Amino acid sequence: MTRAELTEKIVAHKTFNDIKWKDVATAVGQSKEWVTAALMGQISLTKEQAIAAGNAMGLNFSDEELALLMTVPYRGSIATAVPTDPLIYRLYEVVAVYGTTMKALIEEEFGDGIMSAIDFTMDIQREENPAGDRVKIEMTGKFLPYKTF
Amino acid sequence: MTRAELTEKIVAHKTFNDIKWKDVATAVGQSKEWVTAALMGQISLTKEQAIAAGNAMGLNFSDEELALLMTVPYRGSIATAVPTDPLIYRLYEVVAVYGTTMKALIEEEFGDGIMSAIDFTMDIQREENPAGDRVKIEMTGKFLPYKTF
Amino acid sequence: MTRAELTEKIVAHKTFNDIKWKDVATAVGQSKEWVTAALMGQISLTKEQAIAAGNAMGLNFSDEELALLMTVPYRGSIATAVPTDPLIYRLYEVVAVYGTTMKALIEEEFGDGIMSAIDFTMDIQREENPAGDRVKIEMTGKFLPYKTF
Amino acid sequence: MTRAELTEKIVAHKTFNDIKWKDVATAVGQSKEWVTAALMGQISLTKEQAIAAGNAMGLNFSDEELALLMTVPYRGSIATAVPTDPLIYRLYEVVAVYGTTMKALIEEEFGDGIMSAIDFTMDIQREENPAGDRVKIEMTGKFLPYKTF
Amino acid sequence: MTRAELTEKIVAHKTFNDIKWKDVATAVGQSKEWVTAALMGQISLTKEQAIAAGNAMGLNFSDEELALLMTVPYRGSIATAVPTDPLIYRLYEVVAVYGTTMKALIEEEFGDGIMSAIDFTMDIQREENPAGDRVKIEMTGKFLPYKTF
Amino acid sequence: MTRAELTEKIVAHKTFNDIKWKDVATAVGQSKEWVTAALMGQISLTKEQAIAAGNAMGLNFSDEELALLMTVPYRGSIATAVPTDPLIYRLYEVVAVYGTTMKALIEEEFGDGIMSAIDFTMDIQREENPAGDRVKIEMTGKFLPYKTF
Amino acid sequence: MTRAELTEKIVAHKTFNDIKWKDVATAVGQSKEWVTAALMGQISLTKEQAIAAGNAMGLNFSDEELALLMTVPYRGSIATAVPTDPLIYRLYEVVAVYGTTMKALIEEEFGDGIMSAIDFTMDIQREENPAGDRVKIEMTGKFLPYKTF
Amino acid sequence: MTRAELTEKIVAHKTFNDIKWKDVATAVGQSKEWVTAALMGQISLTKEQAIAAGNAMGLNFSDEELALLMTVPYRGSIATAVPTDPLIYRLYEVVAVYGTTMKALIEEEFGDGIMSAIDFTMDIQREENPAGDRVKIEMTGKFLPYKTF
Amino acid sequence: MTRAELTEKIVAHKTFNDIKWKDVATAVGQSKEWVTAALMGQISLTKEQAIAAGNAMGLNFSDEELALLMTVPYRGSIATAVPTDPLIYRLYEVVAVYGTTMKALIEEEFGDGIMSAIDFTMDIQREENPAGDRVKIEMTGKFLPYKTF
Amino acid sequence: MTRAELTEKIVAHKTFNDIKWKDVATAVGQSKEWVTAALMGQISLTKEQAIAAGNAMGLNFSDEELALLMTVPYRGSIATAVPTDPLIYRLYEVVAVYGTTMKALIEEEFGDGIMSAIDFTMDIQREENPAGDRVKIEMTGKFLPYKTF
Repeated sequence: MTRAELTEKIVAHKTFNDIKWKDVATAVGQSKEWVTAALMGQISLTKEQAIAAGNAMGLNFSDEELALLMTVPYRGSIATAVPTDPLIYRLYEVVAVYGTTMKALIEEEFGDGIMSAIDFTMDIQREENPAGDRVKIEMTGKFLPYKTF
Repeated sequence: MTRAELTEKIVAHKTFNDIKWKDVATAVGQSKEWVTAALMGQISLTKEQAIAAGNAMGLNFSDEELALLMTVPYRGSIATAVPTDPLIYRLYEVVAVYGTTMKALIEEEFGDGIMSAIDFTMDIQREENPAGDRVKIEMTGKFLPYKTF
Repeated sequence: MTRAELTEKIVAHKTFNDIKWKDVATAVGQSKEWVTAALMGQISLTKEQAIAAGNAMGLNFSDEELALLMTVPYRGSIATAVPTDPLIYRLYEVVAVYGTTMKALIEEEFGDGIMSAIDFTMDIQREENPAGDRVKIEMTGKFLPYKTF
Repeated sequence: MTRAELTEKIVAHKTFNDIKWKDVATAVGQSKEWVTAALMGQISLTKEQAIAAGNAMGLNFSDEELALLMTVPYRGSIATAVPTDPLIYRLYEVVAVYGTTMKALIEEEFGDGIMSAIDFTMDIQREENPAGDRVKIEMTGKFLPYKTF
Repeated sequence: MTRAELTEKIVAHKTFNDIKWKDVATAVGQSKEWVTAALMGQISLTKEQAIAAGNAMGLNFSDEELALLMTVPYRGSIATAVPTDPLIYRLYEVVAVYGTTMKALIEEEFGDGIMSAIDFTMDIQREENPAGDRVKIEMTGKFLPYKTF
Repeated sequence: MTRAELTEKIVAHKTFNDIKWKDVATAVGQSKEWVTAALMGQISLTKEQAIAAGNAMGLNFSDEELALLMTVPYRGSIATAVPTDPLIYRLYEVVAVYGTTMKALIEEEFGDGIMSAIDFTMDIQREENPAGDRVKIEMTGKFLPYKTF
Repeated sequence: MTRAELTEKIVAHKTFNDIKWKDVATAVGQSKEWVTAALMGQISLTKEQAIAAGNAMGLNFSDEELALLMTVPYRGSIATAVPTDPLIYRLYEVVAVYGTTMKALIEEEFGDGIMSAIDFTMDIQREENPAGDRVKIEMTGKFLPYKTF
Repeated sequence: MTRAELTEKIVAHKTFNDIKWKDVATAVGQSKEWVTAALMGQISLTKEQAIAAGNAMGLNFSDEELALLMTVPYRGSIATAVPTDPLIYRLYEVVAVYGTTMKALIEEEFGDGIMSAIDFTMDIQREENPAGDRVKIEMTGKFLPYKTF
Repeated sequence: MTRAELTEKIVAHKTFNDIKWKDVATAVGQSKEWVTAALMGQISLTKEQAIAAGNAMGLNFSDEELALLMTVPYRGSIATAVPTDPLIYRLYEVVAVYGTTMKALIEEEFGDGIMSAIDFTMDIQREENPAGDRVKIEMTGKFLPYKTF
Repeated sequence: MTRAELTEKIVAHKTFNDIKWKDVATAVGQSKEWVTAALMGQISLTKEQAIAAGNAMGLNFSDEELALLMTVPYRGSIATAVPTDPLIYRLYEVVAVYGTTMKALIEEEFGDGIMSAIDFTMDIQREENPAGDRVKIEMTGKFLPYKTF
């Protein structure tokens, strides 16, 4: 069994039984964003977290499955450099269109450096709106300045 | 003169004279995110906005330059499918690593559909933090459900 | 079993038994375009729709198969960025050759924005013609204007 | 001067002077879709058509420019296999997501073959709609059956 | 079983038993070029043709195998955009080197349009020659003129 | 001046003045296929041939232009691995779809080896046909057997 | 079993049982860097080394597994030309950003040549630092000068 | 003038006049690694640093050149994802072959996280060795742990 | 079983049992270069040669395995256009760096044409050298001149 | 002027004036292979060598041209990863088809390691042969063994 196959098994089981990521997250004791990323194969869990997630979903993970969930993964959740799935593509499009704008504004505010994608948080919420509800994604990442050396 | 050459001219002029994007934005009467994106060649300006931006920067745009700023651009601000600039790459990495997570959570909350990248806003702020200031990027996009047909 | 394997199974069964997509669509209660896309692995069905489709085809889907049909798929129906199949390539060629023309005309008529591929319908018909029948594809998508922010 | 440079010149001139493609098309005596494609560098014009287009736009094409407009172009209007411009990308997305569906339905209706992209027409219209106007794209192409040989 | 696996099975069986494509073609009642393409997975057979081919090869195709042979395939016989096999590469090289020449000569003779790859025939023969026998490939395709629209 | 720029100059001049490749070929004393390929930048000419071609077209090539026409070119007439021009793409499609078929039939007839693309001839003719004239392309290449070593 | 599958088995077993690479390395009698690379499928082991590594991990390698570990591998540890895993990407980014700098400085110091990646050593250490511990990677490679010939 | 053209000008001038990067670095007051990277177009200089570098090289930078040196660059020093220059390729090969090894060892020592390529230093030295001098590259980067969120 | 799987089986068996390619070649009665290429899946063997190779290795090939060894393969021994294995990459690098040089010298000596890769021999030897033994690769290929047509 | 433009100038001048690479090489005092590679932009010359080459060709190189010839180049003589020129492609094909064979034989003879492409020589000769003269390419490279570390 590969990690990709385990991910498919988890997702199919979730869909068929109408389990919510946020309920699994509560059982694990972390945010829904972090736990979903872990079950999607992008973050490693401790053995305790993996068992808790399995129990919350009604899946009794085998030792092999637990080992896969505990291993730091080779990250990368999409199969191609440019995603084909429309929802994920729109996020990519934001980078493709507004990437140089974000670079210009972050550099104007902070100087030369980057926003960390490691010391990073992400929060996804529904924003109610009479013209149609909106998806709100908030990311924060520590600013890391380039240093002279 | 191509739009890319005009962008380079604007950026070099800004750097050498230490002009702020937010001041140009004030003169144009839109947000700093939107005006920077326009001057970076991703959004079209009206003739009045283009002239206002030029005046605020101390650049006296020619008719050819105004025409370029007024044309709806062929969007795409980065030269390669995977960006090489580290600041922009980190944004891409967020999509590469967390894209399927975002997809899973948006679909759990809203059902099948996407977050629009057109009916979209973006806001970039400094978040002060004793452990090191953070870049905060907030995006909102209208949720668009897939429809049966 | 992966979704791709299920798609192959459905298509082979359809071919061998000479089942019509439009008859399956009638059983599901949606258009032939939408139901075909779902069985091709691009749209998710409800459990009821999945069962109805299976019954109409003489396939008795297992729970695992139903779960696959119910899961929102990672969309993308072709294996490579440029399709190799001649029928699908011709559609790609229309975009490659006439894409900037469509952009120019939509922008002239509507202003800066896009045609949605989500709030979208598609209809495929035979157009009888003495010089040889024609395929007629009609697409409509909501116009989404870029907004200032 | 390359054909790409001529296209840029035509588009900038059109934008700055607020000329309409449909008015140029009327002067040339063909549809707006065909004339726009020609001026975008995808279709060749006769010398008479090229001169008529130039007059309608207030551009007095040189002999070199006329030669470029009269040459059958190396077709392909977008710079990369996957378009980066959001409007054009949505058209590509339709092929990426629904390509196998279109293939399945055309083959069910017509048998094995393709829709021609050469013996082809295209019509783009605004469809008024209280929930937001829609872009309607209608394409027809002659069905070409595969033959045994 | 995938269509690729069936192709491999057919080819290995042919090689081991020294069966000739032209003999299979005679049994099916079509040209050797067409029947070989069908067994290579690029053309669909009727159930009768598939059974005839199987009988001629001494293969007793199962229902699953017949269904695969009867399905209109997703065409594309080579694994990469640029073929690595030297024999097939030479054909690709002809297009890479002489493609613009063929375009220039066809357009001079016929006007703007294409040679159809659908209404198309192909014939491969040995041409005896004292300086070394030659492969002769003759292709004919209907000329399809671009039309104004 | 690059060879690509010289090619563009030659083609634009030919189009504007309605010169025929076959007339240039007669002046050079070779086939229309070979001379067109040379002027398209894929074959080198002798100084005498280059001067003859220039005279036949009413172009008085400079020494620099003659040197370019005399240099063995870095061959490759299309800008991308997969051609975007529809006429040239159809030729590529023949290789993509029928490449393994051609390989199978050439190997059945000749044994393991290739058809040379160097010891190679090409002939393009109009084939009159009441159902629409056809383009006929005949290629012959010396069969080169793989040798043991 | 492929070498990639064996690598996955080794890594999952290591993670689940909390085995340390450095302990395996001690048992094999080489550095942790070299032994880890071998078990990751980039270096071949002798039969004795492979058995020693298996014993140290509590894995009793079969003959097939030993053969895989003893075979000189087709090297290349990452699935795509540009790595998607963030840790590995940062190493790639160093080459992408500072590659020409390293070239300039090595050539200034040594003349025209390269640093060998074969006669090469690598050492990875923790560097304690009150501002946050640092990863220290030291590589040495023999300088190989280009020679005239 | 583009930044790439300025880089070429600086490098050609350095070569012709046999200027040393380390002498320019001394004049600027930073390490040779940092200053070389800046002049190679990967790091921005202050106006004072840019003027000092120009003076040290005997180049009197124009205002346009100073603006280019002062602008935060779009980083990426190599033209293709996989470098073609042998010296730079060897560095890439280290990542391609040993990337997963480095990942495994850093994660064993530090836990899940990365080595920063921003809070990063690099030092290149000659290591004398009787078997042939060696290039020694030492990199240190702050370890950044993934955080839960 | 695919040909790739058979290749892996042969190589693992050879490694584990320390069989020499040259001994297998002697049993087959061809050069070590040719027989290795055949067993690596790039050349087809006769049934007799395949049986002889199997006997020499202590492998008793099944009929399916013999059929695979007898089939003319789809050639191409490396998985990606640019090889990742360092030994094979160095050969690729020679082409990347010296390709235009080889072209210039072959054309100067022979005129316009190519060195055949089909009527081709290859010989690999150890060249003893006090400064370190050298690999000597000698290739000869028939010169094939371009012909006019 | 870029190095590519200088290369084109040198090659056109050589062709027009029928200069031989071997005569230039004699004047420079190195082999024809090495000098051609230098003038093709892959090896740097000393000022004396560059001047000698210029004199031998009847070109009086300017200081800018001399600086380009003296700069260690960013190596890579072909524009794309897979060459399109047939002569160079055949060399690439040898690697693509026989690369794993060469690897197997070099490793059998020498153990794990590579043939250097830096401590490398190349010699190209005509081999007279009644069945058609042959191109003989002999390469030698120092064997570099992988070391444990």
